[in-house]
Amino acid sequence: VIVGSEGTLAVVTKVWVRLTADPQGYRTLLGIFNSVDDATNAISAIIGAGIVPAALEMMDQGILVAIEAAFKFGFPLDAQAILLIEADGLEAGLDEQRDQIIAFCLQNGACEVRQAKDAKERHLLWKCRKQAFGAVGRLSPSYCTQDGVVPRTKLPYILRRITDIGRKHDIRIVNVFHAGDGNIHPILLFDERDAGQVRRVLAASDEILDECIACGGSVTGEHGIGVEKLHFMHKLFTTDDLAAMERLRIAFNPTGRLSPSKMLPTSAGCGIEIKAPRRRAAV
Amino acid sequence: VIVGSEGTLAVVTKVWVRLTADPQGYRTLLGIFNSVDDATNAISAIIGAGIVPAALEMMDQGILVAIEAAFKFGFPLDAQAILLIEADGLEAGLDEQRDQIIAFCLQNGACEVRQAKDAKERHLLWKCRKQAFGAVGRLSPSYCTQDGVVPRTKLPYILRRITDIGRKHDIRIVNVFHAGDGNIHPILLFDERDAGQVRRVLAASDEILDECIACGGSVTGEHGIGVEKLHFMHKLFTTDDLAAMERLRIAFNPTGRLSPSKMLPTSAGCGIEIKAPRRRAAV
Repeated sequence: VIVGSEGTLAVVTKVWVRLTADPQGYRTLLGIFNSVDDATNAISAIIGAGIVPAALEMMDQGILVAIEAAFKFGFPLDAQAILLIEADGLEAGLDEQRDQIIAFCLQNGACEVRQAKDAKERHLLWKCRKQAFGAVGRLSPSYCTQDGVVPRTKLPYILRRITDIGRKHDIRIVNVFHAGDGNIHPILLFDERDAGQVRRVLAASDEILDECIACGGSVTGEHGIGVEKLHFMHKLFTTDDLAAMERLRIAFNPTGRLSPSKMLPTSAGCGIEIKAPRRRAAV
Repeated sequence: VIVGSEGTLAVVTKVWVRLTADPQGYRTLLGIFNSVDDATNAISAIIGAGIVPAALEMMDQGILVAIEAAFKFGFPLDAQAILLIEADGLEAGLDEQRDQIIAFCLQNGACEVRQAKDAKERHLLWKCRKQAFGAVGRLSPSYCTQDGVVPRTKLPYILRRITDIGRKHDIRIVNVFHAGDGNIHPILLFDERDAGQVRRVLAASDEILDECIACGGSVTGEHGIGVEKLHFMHKLFTTDDLAAMERLRIAFNPTGRLSPSKMLPTSAGCGIEIKAPRRRAAV
């Protein structure tokens, strides 16, 4: 109950963790695709076959150009999408899993699948992914990223819709995300000194999240509701659902002192006054 | 939150489970001891060394006689206590773990440690343990078992106290329990046609559970509070703790229809009338 409650139920003062051993081995692959559709289809094929890579990340051409400029890994700049795929675990069986993943990529139109040849290359690949957001500064002065999630089978559809929505609002959007989870992170590029662009970015952002809900997904995959997405809660949940969440909140937090304006759109029942959320466009 | 709520919060209609592979191997041991103290000290030594057997069960002489009469395994009838210990997991390392367990038993006064020689003997040993309660019919017409739990280091102490309490109330008590968890199951033997015995059994039973609380344990290790142990809740928890549990109950169960008389001693806050618990002596 506490996990995901965004500080509205309790202050966690102590956590017991279970340490797990590092995996015995890794196979880190880079799949290069001529279209985003091919890449997302390869993802569906891998997951559909019951393979669960430790990581399955997608980057589209827009972000790739910025990453290559920043880290000079040697990404093919004409690739429309790349997948960064890592299998890990016991050494026995890892080569077989790698071969299956390569086969699924090639069957779905990958023009090439490369394997990180050593730990150094693996670390560089991960550095590119982890610091992708830092490289966005090469593309525009401001950006707004979103954290929607859709069923994995809807990935090809949502990525096409993101492109359409960007065109409609005249906002350039690049993508880097946790494809294995269906968790998308479209990055909306703009200049926050231009009030018109800010308005268009917020409109496009809301439209993308509405589309995630329409696909059977959610407006947050891992970063939460906070105050920014309060206005989506009534679209995601019924009044009964929200009332149940509010009762739970009162049970843990009867005086309403814990994150009073977060996560639930109203908390009239526990006498908390909710302020209108302050929207922030740029992160 | 739902786990352990004894049906007071929700009706579970669907459960997702993770299947785990069967262990590759087992080592099943029978440690024979001349005293209950020696057996409980061996348990402390095993657990203290960081070994976590899949099972670590204790039976005292009283229950052993009944089990032997029922299943004819060949238990030594003069043993004051036996430990049934099973290590499992990957074959590699299992022999070493077995040797460590044997050494800890012998260091703590075991007169003998036997290993189940094949799957058939292992199954018979487990049958003896699993059906121990059925064998109690050979000892008395009725029995009342308890489900206390104490820190493992307090096992020698609580077993001595159980013997004392039995003597004080003139009730014979035998023991079979999950020693590895500190979860005791004293079996109080009596004849429920004798009102005086019933009164004495209930008094002894309550005294044992009070002793568990005094040791820093609880009145239930795995079977729950139900209605039988409602009168202990004020001894286990502060008024604030109980109020928090009641608020949680109201959050999930605002109409009070789910197990209204179970687990929490009062539920005045949600307008539920709690009947006085009906005590049952014999199970």
